[in-house]
Amino acid sequence: MALSQQRQGKNQQNLFLENELTPRYAVANEVMQLFAPSNSLVSTEANMAVKTDALVDDFVNAIHTNSEIEFNALLETFVDSQVPINPANFDNYLEYLANNVVNHSIHTSSPRFIGHMTSALPCFVRPLAKLMTAMNQNVVKIETAKAFSPYERQALAMMHRLIYNFSNEFYREHVQNSQSTLGILVSGGTAANIIALWCARNKSLGAKNNFPGVEKAGLAAALDYYGYQGAVVIGSELMHYSFEKAADLLGIGTHGLIKIPTNINNQVDLSALRQAIADCQAKNLHIIAIAGVAGTTDSGNIDSLSDIADIAQAANVHFHVDAAWGGPLIFSEQHRQKLIGIERADSVTIDGHKQLYLPMGIGMVFTREPQLASSIEKNASYTMRKNSFDLGKRALEGSRPGMVLFLHAGLHLIGLKGYEFLIDAGIEKTQYMAARIATMPEFELLSQPDINLLLYRYIPESLRELAAKNELTEIDNHQINIFNERLQKTQRQVGRTFISRTTKTITCLEKETSVTALRAVIANPLTTQDDIDAVLNDQIQIALDLSTSDSLEANHTNYV
Amino acid sequence: MALSQQRQGKNQQNLFLENELTPRYAVANEVMQLFAPSNSLVSTEANMAVKTDALVDDFVNAIHTNSEIEFNALLETFVDSQVPINPANFDNYLEYLANNVVNHSIHTSSPRFIGHMTSALPCFVRPLAKLMTAMNQNVVKIETAKAFSPYERQALAMMHRLIYNFSNEFYREHVQNSQSTLGILVSGGTAANIIALWCARNKSLGAKNNFPGVEKAGLAAALDYYGYQGAVVIGSELMHYSFEKAADLLGIGTHGLIKIPTNINNQVDLSALRQAIADCQAKNLHIIAIAGVAGTTDSGNIDSLSDIADIAQAANVHFHVDAAWGGPLIFSEQHRQKLIGIERADSVTIDGHKQLYLPMGIGMVFTREPQLASSIEKNASYTMRKNSFDLGKRALEGSRPGMVLFLHAGLHLIGLKGYEFLIDAGIEKTQYMAARIATMPEFELLSQPDINLLLYRYIPESLRELAAKNELTEIDNHQINIFNERLQKTQRQVGRTFISRTTKTITCLEKETSVTALRAVIANPLTTQDDIDAVLNDQIQIALDLSTSDSLEANHTNYV
Repeated sequence: MALSQQRQGKNQQNLFLENELTPRYAVANEVMQLFAPSNSLVSTEANMAVKTDALVDDFVNAIHTNSEIEFNALLETFVDSQVPINPANFDNYLEYLANNVVNHSIHTSSPRFIGHMTSALPCFVRPLAKLMTAMNQNVVKIETAKAFSPYERQALAMMHRLIYNFSNEFYREHVQNSQSTLGILVSGGTAANIIALWCARNKSLGAKNNFPGVEKAGLAAALDYYGYQGAVVIGSELMHYSFEKAADLLGIGTHGLIKIPTNINNQVDLSALRQAIADCQAKNLHIIAIAGVAGTTDSGNIDSLSDIADIAQAANVHFHVDAAWGGPLIFSEQHRQKLIGIERADSVTIDGHKQLYLPMGIGMVFTREPQLASSIEKNASYTMRKNSFDLGKRALEGSRPGMVLFLHAGLHLIGLKGYEFLIDAGIEKTQYMAARIATMPEFELLSQPDINLLLYRYIPESLRELAAKNELTEIDNHQINIFNERLQKTQRQVGRTFISRTTKTITCLEKETSVTALRAVIANPLTTQDDIDAVLNDQIQIALDLSTSDSLEANHTNYV
Repeated sequence: MALSQQRQGKNQQNLFLENELTPRYAVANEVMQLFAPSNSLVSTEANMAVKTDALVDDFVNAIHTNSEIEFNALLETFVDSQVPINPANFDNYLEYLANNVVNHSIHTSSPRFIGHMTSALPCFVRPLAKLMTAMNQNVVKIETAKAFSPYERQALAMMHRLIYNFSNEFYREHVQNSQSTLGILVSGGTAANIIALWCARNKSLGAKNNFPGVEKAGLAAALDYYGYQGAVVIGSELMHYSFEKAADLLGIGTHGLIKIPTNINNQVDLSALRQAIADCQAKNLHIIAIAGVAGTTDSGNIDSLSDIADIAQAANVHFHVDAAWGGPLIFSEQHRQKLIGIERADSVTIDGHKQLYLPMGIGMVFTREPQLASSIEKNASYTMRKNSFDLGKRALEGSRPGMVLFLHAGLHLIGLKGYEFLIDAGIEKTQYMAARIATMPEFELLSQPDINLLLYRYIPESLRELAAKNELTEIDNHQINIFNERLQKTQRQVGRTFISRTTKTITCLEKETSVTALRAVIANPLTTQDDIDAVLNDQIQIALDLSTSDSLEANHTNYV
């Protein structure tokens, strides 16, 4: 489009810094026009909408994944730190935005962007985003979100029912009962995991006799009162890094996050888990929670949730499942059994902005027991009155937008069967990709996909024979690692297609070694088998180019 | 509009639950249409946009504050807990949405909704909301938000500069330096306050000699190592309730939140603050932070920040300022001096969705020292690599949307002078309201406004003489409290205008007593003097109706 092919770079920096001061009355006038009711300024807002929509269309329909601009060059366009004095003209700002920001953003909706958990969204989220912002409800309390509070509770109850499937009576009693909490809508999976462990900590170290509980007295006093040497959370070594944040925040320290080794399928090793529990008990450490992972961030594997549920139950410990990624498998008749045991979890995290195909900013935590969240309840006289219906009283966050609009709409406009189709299709395409890779000499599959994440790597030609015989030395692997890192960075820089990278422990010559892995996430409904082929072929092409280039420094991107 | 005047209530519940199963291929087809690139389905998405825009226009232009539906009746429309089987038709869903949700939401943009910190927004946020959602960037890392990461850093640096006003060299060095953090964008002020105290805790109980620091070893071990009996945060009794959440989360317990009495101007009492610090030192309690409030939630008063800065400096304690509401006074030449001392704060919270007139979901925390946030840094191999530019590594949240689009746009499209105008205008109108109330026999002003919040109450006719002479007994005040609560609830229920309520301590007959206060927040640029008069007259009318009504139970709203 015309907008995005114009001025760019350093000269833009001071575009909005004028020396001349607009008179006070003129500023007031301009600002008031921005706030005027929309029907009185059809032309102003309509003009904005038409021009912005053109940008939207361009962006959403892009096939390449990002522009080729080097990151350091991009940084230089954002160094000015002074707030412009006068209000800028919208068209000028939009032009600036198109050239400097939109142009160099990531086309997360591209069918060839299959390296992260961000994908194309259904079109209804775009008009609804405008509606949500226009309504500007604040779901923290009824007085700023009358219908949105029960509306949110309903959508969360629907998700709760998919997980726990309690009786009609149960839901009739709790869905709109302000004393009950079936789920909490938060900004993301990290906040959801933090809240789950917060509830678990507060409940397990709660008020007793004369002791007011950890919530009031603090962690040191609680450990002291209950006679523990310390407190821990136990889970797989592949737990998301939000558990590190939670352990730090909640005062148990990241050393209190006990990471259990995983088996060849990236699932927590159950006997090691049992041993860790016994060790903690022997050391008189309080176990706040045992966490299961339903969809590891690296490779999508799902812990054996039933077994962990048994273990947690035997130890009488809170069982949390981080199903931020894998939770929506619950929609699929075919794949739901991978989550068996989730219905025994005391708390479950699911992200709406991942496999529910909703905009960024929708995390959810569900609790089996509707009273659990009362362990974190806070009140305030000016709002959040004790018996109120206000949703902010049992939450980490305060003021927050009506993001439930997307969740409720998704559950209705996509529906149970629609989500089932999306989940099934992603897994099918991943199996296709795994099968393709298995037949291509250029690549090595690093693990069979459990769901829709896939780890593999490129093997330079000279090492393919050794690789095929599983006879790569540590030095060979190191060389392959360096090559794959360059390959991924170059692919990202060129911007036609995208795959991410991570590390994966494999066994070579009977020795465990950590290797660089290419990581595919196949969730975008627009991604076809042709797109998958195109991504793989792009990597082969880039690898060839890299091999024939003289310099090892061909990789000119500077971010890691 | 036609949409919103149709079916409603219980019969809606199962609108989307069909018994007939749509065939699998048909579901796939419908869902794929939702994801199809927008240019291939101009009619589908355009149809959605046109109909949604009509709803938006209706909503934004409403003058009344909300519908009269009783809350219990509203609840009954959201009791179904089953996810619909098949994808619903968009028009049907939108109709449902209009009737059940939009229709019964709060018109936060109404010029007569002057009771909470939520107001009309500038029109550019509506098209930009669509753009942000369409771009679906995930700012947690560069690979899903290339331009958005430096773009966000720039906008935060602009705000940082307004607060701290360091040199050009300082900003040149830090704005785009991935090792530095000038600010963190979060979902709201609560998360911002939590992060500030988290940083303060981790830095002040950090690694030393062989001790790995509170982050790794946990709070009990840290207190033990440093030889403290406990840890506290100290601030005004009017601190926002997010500090309770923070104290609980961070493991010091809400009893570790030491609340200092306030003076007649609702500012923290400085000698009591000094005494509390001395007491903590005497008891060997570690003071994590001293918090100043710049704009109390109840009445908008601002602590004497310079004095608190002196006190914190003398005690060598982290000084945090919660300027979630009052921070934007920094834009006003006339009112900026009320914040003097904020530039000495180690951390500052400001909300974008309050007085920067941006959509819900924009909190910010700024730090004086660009290395402070490294005390909470977390890394992960699959993302958040140690030396990366990824913004998620020093944050409470993980995946999050590109909300900075609104902040950056606001700073440019409203500009320094535009924000100054908005701040000044709100305060002027509040002074008008205070002056009006002072002349009206029906009302009693409960405190002179510092900025744009105002506390007052209605005095029933029979008690006006006593009130004027300040001779109200406790029983009189109790009666007045009950009346004001009924007045506020009825006003809210009727929905023509809106004022919130809180409690306020006043002195009557030389005795301190807590009374129910009506609370006005004058931030909406659309609110005129006429609107203010209309709100007050509405209250007088409702009070008359209540007085003449027989039943004390005339108040039929059920939420508190």
